Amino acid sequence: MRDRLLAAEKVKAIEWRDGALYLLDQRDLPFEENWIACTHVAAVAEAIRSGAVRGAPAIGISAAYGIVLAARDREAEGGDWHGALEADFALLGDAGPAVVDLAWALERMRDRLGRLKGHAEPLAVLEAEALAIHESDREANLTMAQLGVDLIRKHQGNAQAILTHCNTGALATGGFGTALGVIRGAYIEGMVERVYADETRPWLQGSRLTAWELAKEGIPVTLNADSAAAHIMKTKGVTWVVVGAERIAANGDVANKIGTYQLAVCAMHHGVRFMVVAPSSAIDLSLANGDDFPIEEQGGEALLDVGGKRLDAAVDVFDPGFDVTPADLIDVIVTEKGIIERPDTAKIAQLMCRKRLH
Amino acid sequence: MRDRLLAAEKVKAIEWRDGALYLLDQRDLPFEENWIACTHVAAVAEAIRSGAVRGAPAIGISAAYGIVLAARDREAEGGDWHGALEADFALLGDAGPAVVDLAWALERMRDRLGRLKGHAEPLAVLEAEALAIHESDREANLTMAQLGVDLIRKHQGNAQAILTHCNTGALATGGFGTALGVIRGAYIEGMVERVYADETRPWLQGSRLTAWELAKEGIPVTLNADSAAAHIMKTKGVTWVVVGAERIAANGDVANKIGTYQLAVCAMHHGVRFMVVAPSSAIDLSLANGDDFPIEEQGGEALLDVGGKRLDAAVDVFDPGFDVTPADLIDVIVTEKGIIERPDTAKIAQLMCRKRLH
Repeated sequence: MRDRLLAAEKVKAIEWRDGALYLLDQRDLPFEENWIACTHVAAVAEAIRSGAVRGAPAIGISAAYGIVLAARDREAEGGDWHGALEADFALLGDAGPAVVDLAWALERMRDRLGRLKGHAEPLAVLEAEALAIHESDREANLTMAQLGVDLIRKHQGNAQAILTHCNTGALATGGFGTALGVIRGAYIEGMVERVYADETRPWLQGSRLTAWELAKEGIPVTLNADSAAAHIMKTKGVTWVVVGAERIAANGDVANKIGTYQLAVCAMHHGVRFMVVAPSSAIDLSLANGDDFPIEEQGGEALLDVGGKRLDAAVDVFDPGFDVTPADLIDVIVTEKGIIERPDTAKIAQLMCRKRLH
Repeated sequence: MRDRLLAAEKVKAIEWRDGALYLLDQRDLPFEENWIACTHVAAVAEAIRSGAVRGAPAIGISAAYGIVLAARDREAEGGDWHGALEADFALLGDAGPAVVDLAWALERMRDRLGRLKGHAEPLAVLEAEALAIHESDREANLTMAQLGVDLIRKHQGNAQAILTHCNTGALATGGFGTALGVIRGAYIEGMVERVYADETRPWLQGSRLTAWELAKEGIPVTLNADSAAAHIMKTKGVTWVVVGAERIAANGDVANKIGTYQLAVCAMHHGVRFMVVAPSSAIDLSLANGDDFPIEEQGGEALLDVGGKRLDAAVDVFDPGFDVTPADLIDVIVTEKGIIERPDTAKIAQLMCRKRLH
């Protein structure tokens, strides 16, 4: 399946070519495919800040390349360029302070920088590190796709209807996607009859990105209002809900795009299986459970906009970006390190220990 | 409470004045308050067809007045004006073929017409009948508000957070509203701390109408994405979900705006009480259960529109207008004839029998 996924790859959002970073501007999708060429770190930070690049893994990868661009400029300036780079780390970090993959990628680049010790070609080393971060994300997604597809096949061998939320695809990662990578893989294996894509209010990542990405690959996709999901589970033979994760707590509680929790409740009610697909870097053992997640509130701009006009100031708005799905509503968490069925603290700890074995 | 509700009435959408029907054009809300003056039946039919008037009770009332306008014109034409009126009944009926209140109101007007028997002032009789239909809807809503508020008070005496879906207010009825009438009454009785209004995709009746209507009356309202409802139930102390009904089957299954079913599933999961408020005319004993409801599919126009641009034709869309909430997810159905806790076929039949006693 790995080879077939690689051969079928049509959607990429991040490319490193001839010493420059090219980002597919996701603000213009699905109507225009515009690429942003970044040759300096400021452009990368702006792409992250503005939402031109989105999805935690894609943001982390872009930031890693951003450090490569910054190092090239700082080294050319001469002097204590390692020290000067700190400003660039801060610039990139501040562009997406809540994105755990961003902090993780920057920390990995800083760590590599610290181990250069007068290396003859420091820029080549940093570039190799960023490429490794990117490649490692792609490999992780290919692994997760295989693990997820194995699960889907195990429970039911024929083609199935799958429901997903937000965008977790090639557009959000270094390639293939997390939840959408599993769905892609399942399609290639002949196990997807139809994908139902929640439009995902308020920002419509489902309409703008997931529907576009799946249609581009010829995967049958049906767009629906978020509030139709339970009705679809009841009437359309959905067997799996497959979603991504922004962050996963030590006990398996999952923070993800607002609406994920509602899907999990409805999936349990209908006996539909619920799969979370995310790299192990999303697991944050410092958070005991979902109560510890910071839930960012958005400004409500998209909710207050009705047909291009803004609602009256007398209307309050509650617009959380994420919600928390408790572990006991999750059938399985798929990571590149392996799967966790019926997640709990012990199983998560066991999975995370595996890195010590390598 | 009845007097206080009458005294506080600020929002009306249907007025009969000086032999003309005035309809608040709901397509322009909340940005403009434009009234459509209807002096002939064609304008009423167009208002129904175009969605200028919406909500099953409001459509039924408007159609009744439409027959009054039609009768005036037909009688002036002379000849067999009773027979000629059939074309007007058909015109109005065809303007909203799926609306049960519309058929009901037209049937009542036709029945009154059939009993005229050479009455000296047939137009006055028909006008009185339409006014009675309108007044009866208002009285029914006042009664339901009282019954609903009694229930809310019974379960918890202090001010509460209530979540609602779509618009079921003065804008959708002859006045006060069904579900929103209960919420209005509860506010007047000091039992509402805050109303969470689902924006109600795809047509945003919550954003456009419910938020406007509540804000206009000074009732604290917070707008939210439909997919945030479960998160709100979990984190904001919601005690009741209060919604309307398009139709109710003999066993208590409820057809209502898409998303209602999802709310009911989530309410049960959170131990939040679920109240359906609808006049008994919404109960259709010819439908054994929810499987018999015809679920109209909309064209998906609103889902396919992203920021004013239309999505690619490669994207399919599933856009049901309604869904079915099974009776076993409903705590109570409130009608003007009384309440039905934990509805089932026997209780519904008993409630509907009451009309024979009068």
